[in-house]
This record gives sequence, structure tokens and C-alpha cells, in this order.
Amino acid sequence: MRKVAVVGTGHTDFAAESPKTEIEMFCEAATEAMAECETGPEKIQALYCGNVFGDFAEGQGMIQSYIANELGMHNIPATRFEGACASATLAIRDAFMWVASGFYDIVLVGGTEKATAMSTPLATRTFAMGTDAKYEFAAGLTFPGFFALLAHLYAHTYGVSMERLREQMSLVSVQSHFYGTKNPHAQFKHKEITVDQVSNGFMVASPLRLLDCCPFSDGAAALVLASEDVAKKLTAKPVFITGSGQASSPRLSAQAPYLPRLRAREISAKQAYDMAGIGPADIDICELHDCFSIASIIAAENLGFAENGTAGQLWEKGETKIGGKIPINISGGLKAKGHPIGATGASQTCEIVRQLRGDLVDSGRQVNGAKTGLVDTLGGDGTIANLVLQAGW
Amino acid sequence: MRKVAVVGTGHTDFAAESPKTEIEMFCEAATEAMAECETGPEKIQALYCGNVFGDFAEGQGMIQSYIANELGMHNIPATRFEGACASATLAIRDAFMWVASGFYDIVLVGGTEKATAMSTPLATRTFAMGTDAKYEFAAGLTFPGFFALLAHLYAHTYGVSMERLREQMSLVSVQSHFYGTKNPHAQFKHKEITVDQVSNGFMVASPLRLLDCCPFSDGAAALVLASEDVAKKLTAKPVFITGSGQASSPRLSAQAPYLPRLRAREISAKQAYDMAGIGPADIDICELHDCFSIASIIAAENLGFAENGTAGQLWEKGETKIGGKIPINISGGLKAKGHPIGATGASQTCEIVRQLRGDLVDSGRQVNGAKTGLVDTLGGDGTIANLVLQAGW
Repeated sequence: MRKVAVVGTGHTDFAAESPKTEIEMFCEAATEAMAECETGPEKIQALYCGNVFGDFAEGQGMIQSYIANELGMHNIPATRFEGACASATLAIRDAFMWVASGFYDIVLVGGTEKATAMSTPLATRTFAMGTDAKYEFAAGLTFPGFFALLAHLYAHTYGVSMERLREQMSLVSVQSHFYGTKNPHAQFKHKEITVDQVSNGFMVASPLRLLDCCPFSDGAAALVLASEDVAKKLTAKPVFITGSGQASSPRLSAQAPYLPRLRAREISAKQAYDMAGIGPADIDICELHDCFSIASIIAAENLGFAENGTAGQLWEKGETKIGGKIPINISGGLKAKGHPIGATGASQTCEIVRQLRGDLVDSGRQVNGAKTGLVDTLGGDGTIANLVLQAGW
Repeated sequence: MRKVAVVGTGHTDFAAESPKTEIEMFCEAATEAMAECETGPEKIQALYCGNVFGDFAEGQGMIQSYIANELGMHNIPATRFEGACASATLAIRDAFMWVASGFYDIVLVGGTEKATAMSTPLATRTFAMGTDAKYEFAAGLTFPGFFALLAHLYAHTYGVSMERLREQMSLVSVQSHFYGTKNPHAQFKHKEITVDQVSNGFMVASPLRLLDCCPFSDGAAALVLASEDVAKKLTAKPVFITGSGQASSPRLSAQAPYLPRLRAREISAKQAYDMAGIGPADIDICELHDCFSIASIIAAENLGFAENGTAGQLWEKGETKIGGKIPINISGGLKAKGHPIGATGASQTCEIVRQLRGDLVDSGRQVNGAKTGLVDTLGGDGTIANLVLQAGW
């Protein structure tokens, strides 16, 4: 297997409502990614795209082919991946393999989504398609309820009082919004919040309140991946994908013996760590899937950053901030940066690459000296994908 | 790159309406494929699934994860591919790469679709999501219109009279239905038709009449792929994937300079032939994407079986039948076997594998001595994928 580097990154603004189509947003991000490595569309050999709701949002299936040709990548192979919120991370994992295997030398990968194209009542139903439709959605389970159940189970299983967990969850959201103000692409780039605002906000699904929940967003992100030989000609600051993991879960109720741990994430993260030959202690920065505040706490444990039942203390102690033990979601995360479903994994990867290259000093969110990063994306309750990224030659 | 063999095949009945869910149909096909090579779910390392309309048909996104776990393949990576009608072929191409690269030794791949879950008026709009939604669908272009335009252009470009083309198109459908009666899984397994019935049927989009058009269907098909070493332990009759091609197209109007040739297919087929080190003359049997009768004629030319403007003569002369120069769609094709969108490529591949193994003698549709086969799948007007399959060690 060959080494595979990210040589270009592109990221649109994430917004509550973009005037652009999914194709246009992808092309904007892709153009930035190609410009960054001075690579024209004629050089790109294949395209991989994460997208969940193109058909629902715009009546457009198979957007990847139109994207390829809109970008001037005439007739190249173009493939769409759907794994709910993990769609773009699956696309990156796959693009990685086509380069690592030696089949292609340089490819474009990313994700795009107009998640706000569905009005809220329909959105709840639409997004619930990422959970089990036959039994669990029919019984009323949507994602806020899903993570609310996990929050209660978490407090009960680990003997964390609901009062303390409430405070910890609020700290998660407050930190995300704090760093979100330093990310010019963030949906809530102007909005800091307080613990009090989170803890006393509108109740969505007890104990989760409005500011425990990430928004839905429109946006896209893209990356150019290249083999080591090609990367040498395109960038002085390559970031290599050195680990990749993926695992699936059954419906929530079938995961009962293991909950609130998400076993698929533990399996996927181990694959990624083992492939890179590292462990959680080697990670300098992480973007994890904070669709809800409780999800961040559970994820930090699944990924090995804290013992089960203790990850909330990372936020209590400031260990998840810049300068802490494990800086998490310094982009603002899904919570403040925004969550364009099928683009989120590409956005996370873009952020980690820019951190590892040291690009973010001016934004005030650079984690100095970060050399190894982790991407964590949870698709619905069924798909997990992780990537380890490492800077330098 | 390692050699990759198909070691197991499974295929449900294709029907106008199945009582089963998409997950259940995939599991039925997968179970047959695994039983064929005596491989239990605990051996399968990853799952690749083609599916287009799970969200529309059943409100279920991300079905691949639920499929994996329903089959007892707990927590394995599971990925969904959407490239309209070519979805399953993309999944196979990808599964092939994960094994060829050495990353996995044995994987499950297939497709599943409940294409009849949408009632007809909605279906026309829904399926048109596989063409350009922004300009061309908005202008009224759906797939029958798309291929009707190509038929007129074909007759005009090559100087084939509409009368003769009408007869040729009818012969395509008549042959498909004839062989469909020999396929116990075919949706129209009891229905032979005549040239007169096709040529004088209900007009759908001039010149295409009802029996020029394939049906929509519910169904699934699945394959077990293995590396050569693993395949040796699992089957005495391996069929290797020796060539793979994929290409994309822009919207129809942007293809104008090339039409009625579909350039993406010519590119994709050349990739597949070149990779296998063969040419069209080496193909003993082909399953091609006959969504409409005219599509078969154009495909046969794009794939190199006839000069442009002459492929209809293959059907006139019986060269596409068993014993002819290039047996085409001996399964009954999309026309008579049926067309469960995201499963079609897996169904085509399953048929070619069974032909190359000599399994179909009892059905009366065996192409004796066939050693090399070609799969051709057209997704909407934007995605083409081809596979070359070859029998033996």
C-alpha cells in the first residue's frame, strides 16, 4: 500500500440557508482545494462524494456525475457514498484506498449537503431515516430522543448525577461556540453562549435542551488526495492519512448490552489507531461527532481519551481546549460550525489538515505543534468512520 | 494488485411488488451467495451495497448497516453506493478494489431495491432524479423522453429509417421476453411477446411504446468476492473480475456533440477491456443496460459489438441469441427479467457468473463454452460502469 497525502483543502461557509445548490457548493469547495495545490481539473482522475439528501433536498440523485462534469473533469469516474452523517468520511476512506492501492495517483473527495432545504417538521422525519425505520422510528425514536436516552443511561450506568452531567454537557456546547467564533466558516461565528443559557434553554428531549443540539446546515468541503510521489510536487506541507477505520451498528435496541458505549466506534477507532501504529495518547487534536453535547462525552470515551464515565471531566478541567490534554472540536464542531450532513466528515478532515499544517494561527484557533489528528464521524446510529492524519514527510 | 474472484452468487425473484423489505431481499440474496460457497457471515470482512431509493421507498437511509447486522456480520464496515441504476455495479467495482488491494480477503457485495414502492405518477418524477434536476427535468425531460430523443437522433444520424429502427427495437424486446421465460427469477417469466405487440403497443414517448420500456421491479442480488488464495478453498469454479471501468457524463444537452453515442460508456468499456487485456471480439456473453429497446442498440455499438448505426442488424440476424456472434441479455435483461434499480448491476453480474460457470443448462439459457463475459450498467444519464468477468483459474 502506498502512502496517501491530503494536498489540498476547500471549505465553504456553513450556513442556515445557502442560495447555492449542492453541486455549486461542492464545486466551490473543490475549486479552493485544487487551487491550494495548483492542480487543475484535468489532473483529477476520480471523484468521491458524500451526500445524503440530494434527492430530498433538490430532487437530484447521482449528483457526483454532474459535479465532476461541472468542474471540467469530463467523464472521470464519480461515486456517491451515503452513510448518513458519515457519508463524506466513507468517501474519503474509499478515495484513500483507490490511491493507496496504486490505481489512481490523484483524486478529489468531499461532501455537500443542503440540510436546511427540508422544513423543520419534515426534517425530523427525514433525518430519522438514518436510524432504524422499521421498528424504532415507527415507535417514535428520532435522534434527539436517541441521545436523550443515552444521556439518562450514561448518568445511571456510571453514577454521574444528572446535575453534574447537565453542567458537563453545557460546558461542551459553550466551548464549541467559543471556538466557533474563531472560525470564519462557522454557522454561529458571531454567537458565544453561556452555561446558564444551555442549561436553561428550551427542552427538546429531556435532558437535552436546544443548545445541546447541533443545527442543520448547508455547506460543502473537499480535499485533493495524492500518492506520495505526486504529493511531493504539489505541496511542501503534506498531511498523510495513516489510519482508517469503519464499523457498523445494528438498531439502537440491539446495541443494548453495550450502551451507552457505542461499540462500533470503539472498533472503528481501534482499526484506525492500529493501522497508524499509534494510540489515543498520540492524538494532538480531534474533531469528533458532537451532534448532541452528550455525544461528545460518549465519543471522547469511545475514542480512548478518558475512562468511561469520566470524559465530562475533560471539559470541566479545560483539557479539551487549546493547550489542554486533548483539544477537541476547535473548529466549533457540529454544534457551532454547523452540520451539513453529508459534508461533515470532509469538513472535519479539512479542519484537522489545516491544524496539522499550522494554517490557523491568524484565526486564533491554532493548536501549536499538533502533528497527529483524529477524525470521528458517526452516521446515524449505524455507521462509524475514523481517520488518523499525520503531518510531515 | 491481487486477482479477485466471485465465489458465490445469490438472486431473489424479481417482481412487480415484493412483500419483503429491501433489507430482507438483500439478506435473501446474500444468504444464497454465502451458502453457495459455504461461507458464514463471521467470515465476511466488509459489505458493499447498491441502493438508490431506500429513503423514498421505505423511509430507510443507510440500509447497509442494518443489512450487515441483520446478516450477523456484526460491526463490519458497510458502505452504500448510489449511482442511479449503476449503483450495484459501483459497489462491485469498489468491493473488487478493497480485495485486489490486499486490504480484505473476502467481502459481500450486492444491491437491493423496492422500485415499485413509488406509485406510477410519483415514480416518473422520482426516477427522473437520476437525470439533471436543475435544467433538464425542469424542462420536462424524463427517461422515456430521453431515450425517445436518442432514437430519433439515431435514425437521423445513421440514416436508418424509422420503420426499420421500429422493427429492430421490437426484435430487441421480443428476444428479451423469449429468454425471460427461461429465467425463473424473471418478472415476466410467463410472458412471451411478438413484434406486432411491441410495434403497435401503447405509445409512451414517440417512437417508444410500452414494450420498448423495461418495468420497475423489486429485488436483490448479491455476490461473495474473494482473493485468489481464499477463493481456492471456497469454489472449484471461480469467475475472476479481470476488468473494471467507470465514467461519468454531464447532462444530456451537454453531451450533444457526441450523441447518440454515449461517450462515457465508450470510455468505461475501454478501461475495462484494457485492464483485462482483451477487446469486444473476446466477449462470449454480455448483459447490457436495456432500460429501453433503443438503449440496447446504442449500447451494443458503444461496447464495440457493431459499427455505429448497425447494431440493430445483430438482432435482425439473430446474432444476439444463444449461438450467435454475441449473445446479449440472455437473462431476459432489464426488459423481461426486471429492473430493481440499485440491484440491477449485481443481477447482471450474477447472471454472467452463472453463465461462465455453466450453471444454466437446466434453464435452457446456457451459452455453452462461454468463458469471458461483460457487464454494462448505465446509471441515469450520468454514470456508466463495466466489468469484464473471466472463468477458470
